[in-house]
Amino acid sequence: MSIRVAIAGARGKMGIEAVHTVMKQKNMELVAVLDYKEVGQTLADLEIFPASYLAPIFTDMQELVEVTAPDVLVDLTNPHAVYEHTKEALALNVRPVVGTTGFTDEQLAELTALAKEKELGCIIAPNFAIGAVLMMKFAKEAAKYLPDVEIIEMHHDQKLDAPSGTGLKTAQMIQEVRATKQQGHPEEKETLAGARGADFDGMRVHSVRLPGLVAHQQVLFGGDGQLLTIRHDSLNRQSFMSGIAFCIEEVMKMDQLVYGLENII
Amino acid sequence: MSIRVAIAGARGKMGIEAVHTVMKQKNMELVAVLDYKEVGQTLADLEIFPASYLAPIFTDMQELVEVTAPDVLVDLTNPHAVYEHTKEALALNVRPVVGTTGFTDEQLAELTALAKEKELGCIIAPNFAIGAVLMMKFAKEAAKYLPDVEIIEMHHDQKLDAPSGTGLKTAQMIQEVRATKQQGHPEEKETLAGARGADFDGMRVHSVRLPGLVAHQQVLFGGDGQLLTIRHDSLNRQSFMSGIAFCIEEVMKMDQLVYGLENII
Amino acid sequence: MSIRVAIAGARGKMGIEAVHTVMKQKNMELVAVLDYKEVGQTLADLEIFPASYLAPIFTDMQELVEVTAPDVLVDLTNPHAVYEHTKEALALNVRPVVGTTGFTDEQLAELTALAKEKELGCIIAPNFAIGAVLMMKFAKEAAKYLPDVEIIEMHHDQKLDAPSGTGLKTAQMIQEVRATKQQGHPEEKETLAGARGADFDGMRVHSVRLPGLVAHQQVLFGGDGQLLTIRHDSLNRQSFMSGIAFCIEEVMKMDQLVYGLENII
Amino acid sequence: MSIRVAIAGARGKMGIEAVHTVMKQKNMELVAVLDYKEVGQTLADLEIFPASYLAPIFTDMQELVEVTAPDVLVDLTNPHAVYEHTKEALALNVRPVVGTTGFTDEQLAELTALAKEKELGCIIAPNFAIGAVLMMKFAKEAAKYLPDVEIIEMHHDQKLDAPSGTGLKTAQMIQEVRATKQQGHPEEKETLAGARGADFDGMRVHSVRLPGLVAHQQVLFGGDGQLLTIRHDSLNRQSFMSGIAFCIEEVMKMDQLVYGLENII
Repeated sequence: MSIRVAIAGARGKMGIEAVHTVMKQKNMELVAVLDYKEVGQTLADLEIFPASYLAPIFTDMQELVEVTAPDVLVDLTNPHAVYEHTKEALALNVRPVVGTTGFTDEQLAELTALAKEKELGCIIAPNFAIGAVLMMKFAKEAAKYLPDVEIIEMHHDQKLDAPSGTGLKTAQMIQEVRATKQQGHPEEKETLAGARGADFDGMRVHSVRLPGLVAHQQVLFGGDGQLLTIRHDSLNRQSFMSGIAFCIEEVMKMDQLVYGLENII
Repeated sequence: MSIRVAIAGARGKMGIEAVHTVMKQKNMELVAVLDYKEVGQTLADLEIFPASYLAPIFTDMQELVEVTAPDVLVDLTNPHAVYEHTKEALALNVRPVVGTTGFTDEQLAELTALAKEKELGCIIAPNFAIGAVLMMKFAKEAAKYLPDVEIIEMHHDQKLDAPSGTGLKTAQMIQEVRATKQQGHPEEKETLAGARGADFDGMRVHSVRLPGLVAHQQVLFGGDGQLLTIRHDSLNRQSFMSGIAFCIEEVMKMDQLVYGLENII
Repeated sequence: MSIRVAIAGARGKMGIEAVHTVMKQKNMELVAVLDYKEVGQTLADLEIFPASYLAPIFTDMQELVEVTAPDVLVDLTNPHAVYEHTKEALALNVRPVVGTTGFTDEQLAELTALAKEKELGCIIAPNFAIGAVLMMKFAKEAAKYLPDVEIIEMHHDQKLDAPSGTGLKTAQMIQEVRATKQQGHPEEKETLAGARGADFDGMRVHSVRLPGLVAHQQVLFGGDGQLLTIRHDSLNRQSFMSGIAFCIEEVMKMDQLVYGLENII
Repeated sequence: MSIRVAIAGARGKMGIEAVHTVMKQKNMELVAVLDYKEVGQTLADLEIFPASYLAPIFTDMQELVEVTAPDVLVDLTNPHAVYEHTKEALALNVRPVVGTTGFTDEQLAELTALAKEKELGCIIAPNFAIGAVLMMKFAKEAAKYLPDVEIIEMHHDQKLDAPSGTGLKTAQMIQEVRATKQQGHPEEKETLAGARGADFDGMRVHSVRLPGLVAHQQVLFGGDGQLLTIRHDSLNRQSFMSGIAFCIEEVMKMDQLVYGLENII
């Protein structure tokens, strides 16, 4: 039997891809779309989708659930909307798969309790790229045995912040298992300031920015006579979609809230 | 308190490195060496070691154990000798750390039973390079989520066999968790025979041989819009030594036989 | 003063990108478009372009040249049309920049003579990606000093042929400067057929095919104790556009026909 | 006919390797060794060489030349000795191949004039690793077409200075052909200081230091939709030896002084 899926935020960049992704899965059915304003009766009314996409558009979640009975709500809207959406979905016995951050600790605690009480699966994932999540998980594992680590993250040159969010997240996950340690020679010195990169708890993080790059990261672990490298290349938005399909399947088997894909895979 | 270590096969390539490695560890003491013939009274009598290496050399394991009371026997001899050595060590209440392959299934079963009866740790590891073992372990894990895999292993051009043992072992470990699947386009064709590499259960394995290379491998996982790469570079024999030191520490905490480093880390 | 550019094949995948590219260059002006049939008065009549793209569309080259006086004709049509286009353009004193292959040797000889007689630049380039052309050029140069070479080319798993055209072209360019040499150990043997890749004049070529990949190639040169790697990653069609812009500028300075970007850069 | 080679500095790390290298070449003969003090009659008297190495040791260059008539003097001594050695060798009609730096501009000018007058080849090379020299040469060439560049150099964690000499040299060579340009987004900001690496004329240079690494560098060039990477890995001292053998052959064909291998290859 198909998993019945509703999507909130279907007109956004991620949402458009999510609509196509669900439409392509053989074991899923896109039964409805939630929008905050009146934009049409079905997806076919929107220029961005083909005429064969007939999922109805609702502006009220309760009505959406009553009419279309979804199993899962994929929420790709914004931090302001997701908390209310997720709470309402759980209250209506629909399993949320949420792709934005921005929850407060109180909100997370409340949603966790609600999912537990309802015995409903709920996945909140800041990063849906399974490969990136595996990279971070493996990096954390490897750091237990090879504690000398450097991170090189590489992005297009329109990116404003350095290091990247994934770079920082990786360093934090490694920090949880690695005793603080100043790497490199104790007397090393930079003849050009910044050459050794950013210092995060003794590890070094390097940010490369070049046109042509998309989103790439490698984590290097050095040991006696050997080097272990874990690398992820994200070449386009498709990389998030297999993660969303995976979560829709997983959330059906769960009976509680999980934060972060790394805690499922 | 120091771990008291004996080494069998101290004059071999790996053995020499193991002697230096144990001598350098602050929490270990090299108390004896086992040789199959009379070569001197202590390591200092051998030209290959410095005059300060005073561990006595024995040709009889029982005498070695009675005189020097080791906690651990590191065995780097050959497949013919290791089975007897390991059995004898366990009988004498010494924990074996064995770095060769070549045990029959019957021998492994017998040693496993003996270690269990004695409640003694025993590690048999075909590959001591922790980074290589992590690579294989991560590859097996990643293949569950990203089943499109190719392996590129690269070695010096004096190597006779292709693919490498590690390349094959990696493919076998992935096979355990991955449904058989013919990768690539169903109608792909080679205009030059061999271009697509070796076929192992639908995965492709490529062997590069060039002067200057030592021992390297990368495992590539492709998914929608993304690529995950796990790579290990072994640049010299030192890469095995941190694994041996790690095993000496771990075997002290164990009460049974474990085959393969991947089952400890 | 701006370079006046006309484009043939503006509705094709490459053509669309070329139109956008020329529109973005400050030192170029898109003065006309050549189509084989009536599709509208200007680009703005085509749904695929914005309303501000007002270059007129012609179906006759002579009329196009008389009315709009282009300096350069960028031709991204098909092998059947390019020969006539190129000949006609040269006859009309317009410099061709051609992005398809499929010329016979006789046609090339004739066009070369015509360009020389007219003292007009003319560029015919099977590959406009400057990075890929540099990779091939450097590979040919490096092979003079480090003759042990292997090529690993990596593409998406919808590609039908292996090795890739660029992989073969690279091997051929290396062959021109490298004495035939069987690489690897003379007694090496494949325990899995194909592991050592395709044999091209003693060099090995490996083709990786995975979802997520686009078009990538690395050329590895091994020597005593060292490895030199030249790698090109083409992540999207944009990689061809900077090459086209470059050729439009270069062809203005030339007075003869050149085949292949590697002979200009 | 063999090239007759003498070596100065045969007992140093590089010198020992150079002796073995020349002994292995079929078209070369090691005819003599120059030392600053009496250490034996032939190399066989030194413990570091096998008994079959019978090249005589001299402490006076004039006597060495009179007795053994070398074609080439390979000088791997120190900056203090090389200037006098090189001058004397040229005066005695022997072609110098020098592997140290430390010449003043005046000394270089004088030696250049002397080589020209004598019509003798003379090579002074700060870096004998052909792969590294090719990397720098290609990087300089690529920067003309793809001016967005970042350098990542990676060394063992006992290295004191960052960036490495080769990293700086590469950046300087690129600077010669690249208009100064601040790379990255004009408003990019580091949330961790140093993340974006060292700034050299607008290019970024990153220094990775990890145990297990030897000496590696990659130069990345980004363009629209593409990336070109040139990488060199130096895994042991052998990487310098093929360069020395190459220079011994080349210096025989030359009639003037050349500084830097990049000006020969």
